[in-house]
Amino acid sequence: MAFDPESLRYNEAGLIPAIAQDEAGTVLMMAWMTAEAVARTLETGRVTYWSRSRQAFWVKGETSGHVQRLIEMRVDCDRDCLLVLVEQEGPACHTNRRSCFYTAIRDGAEVEILTPMAD
Amino acid sequence: MAFDPESLRYNEAGLIPAIAQDEAGTVLMMAWMTAEAVARTLETGRVTYWSRSRQAFWVKGETSGHVQRLIEMRVDCDRDCLLVLVEQEGPACHTNRRSCFYTAIRDGAEVEILTPMAD
Repeated sequence: MAFDPESLRYNEAGLIPAIAQDEAGTVLMMAWMTAEAVARTLETGRVTYWSRSRQAFWVKGETSGHVQRLIEMRVDCDRDCLLVLVEQEGPACHTNRRSCFYTAIRDGAEVEILTPMAD
Repeated sequence: MAFDPESLRYNEAGLIPAIAQDEAGTVLMMAWMTAEAVARTLETGRVTYWSRSRQAFWVKGETSGHVQRLIEMRVDCDRDCLLVLVEQEGPACHTNRRSCFYTAIRDGAEVEILTPMAD
């Protein structure tokens, strides 16, 4: 079946969450896409989100160089969440860590489990 | 630092997305939690979401037996998304597939990449 980005289920703001995972299985980040961002990601092979703060397309790594090349896009059963398998250049997180999920809850406390990557 | 579920950032409906990943690295599903669901998940070790359709707590696997035992909860840099590492009993998806992300977009078409698990 041909894939139509409009066939996905978007929230009231027209957004769908997209989880980025690298080839090693690390979950890097979660951000949001519009139908147009989904289409651009598939067309260009560069993962493109919608920045809610800037209200603009966000080609991941466009300014930082930490690009995400799309390996494969997957859709969940409810068609309201995406999983993008990516080749991540350097850190995915703006804190320079590989993954945005660098804090763990252990014994009721927050523990930092990832340090920023070297430049 | 002691972890307080109220310190996370919830959307206007009081919800935060939670991504479940198993020990093999498979992303199983994404669902939503309230602050109370986060607290219950940590207290009980049973991953507990908030069902938006039922408007009720959803202890994953309570009726199906396909429980998720919490290994570790992680928080992202913006404190508005959770990653829960889990031990998943059987399928995570209501379609009886291991993961909800069983459809891939390949060459512009939707392809089913996971089949339902045997009972």
